[in-house]
Amino acid sequence: MTTHAIEPAAILDRIAFDAHGLAPAIAQQHDTGEVLMLAWMNRDAVAETLATGRVCYFSRSRNALWRKGETSGQAQRLVELRMDCDGDALLVLVDQTGVACHTGRRDCFYRAATADGWREIAAPLIAPQTLYHR
Amino acid sequence: MTTHAIEPAAILDRIAFDAHGLAPAIAQQHDTGEVLMLAWMNRDAVAETLATGRVCYFSRSRNALWRKGETSGQAQRLVELRMDCDGDALLVLVDQTGVACHTGRRDCFYRAATADGWREIAAPLIAPQTLYHR
Repeated sequence: MTTHAIEPAAILDRIAFDAHGLAPAIAQQHDTGEVLMLAWMNRDAVAETLATGRVCYFSRSRNALWRKGETSGQAQRLVELRMDCDGDALLVLVDQTGVACHTGRRDCFYRAATADGWREIAAPLIAPQTLYHR
Repeated sequence: MTTHAIEPAAILDRIAFDAHGLAPAIAQQHDTGEVLMLAWMNRDAVAETLATGRVCYFSRSRNALWRKGETSGQAQRLVELRMDCDGDALLVLVDQTGVACHTGRRDCFYRAATADGWREIAAPLIAPQTLYHR
């Protein structure tokens, strides 16, 4: 017997992870629709996210599970996990505590293409050193 | 002299395409916030999108540029192109004509994880055969 709210295998076996065992995961704030970030999940990250209700990614740079907010405190509560038509991309509806971006901005997509190149369209809400050196 | 509204090199040179020359691109409806789909862009796809104002992806299955809507008529007008903090993911704000998904649904993320497995949460708005056999 499992105490998980969601039966993992029925979910996990349908996701078409890539050759590295990963799928891109878009985090979207569930109520405002803000696209917060794009990260990656492996099978274990999806399983842990479903089991705990707290969003867990796979960090390609650290080659390890990345429990969002573990260091920064800026966690994401899972609201709903969705999968696309090809089964190879995930949309994670979340409730974001504070800011999603390691730069201290609400979301990671703070640069817009303009005639003069990339332009920053959002400022940090929290100083990054506050996030990582508490 | 270029007649492009946006100087491509200043944009393109800052994108951190992966080992395959690709970056994931999230298409979001600019006014409603709907996440429509996740696809991929290479340098040429970004350049064409900026030059034409019509969103162009790179199809990994066909290994060719994919001018969204060319076959189906369900095109995406570019509203704004954004890049994330690491420069390796793109957010494309678009105005979607009709439906984004090849299944005839408005967006591709029509399956939600539930205790009983994946559940379809949206029905096709257009029959797929109408999209591709006109």
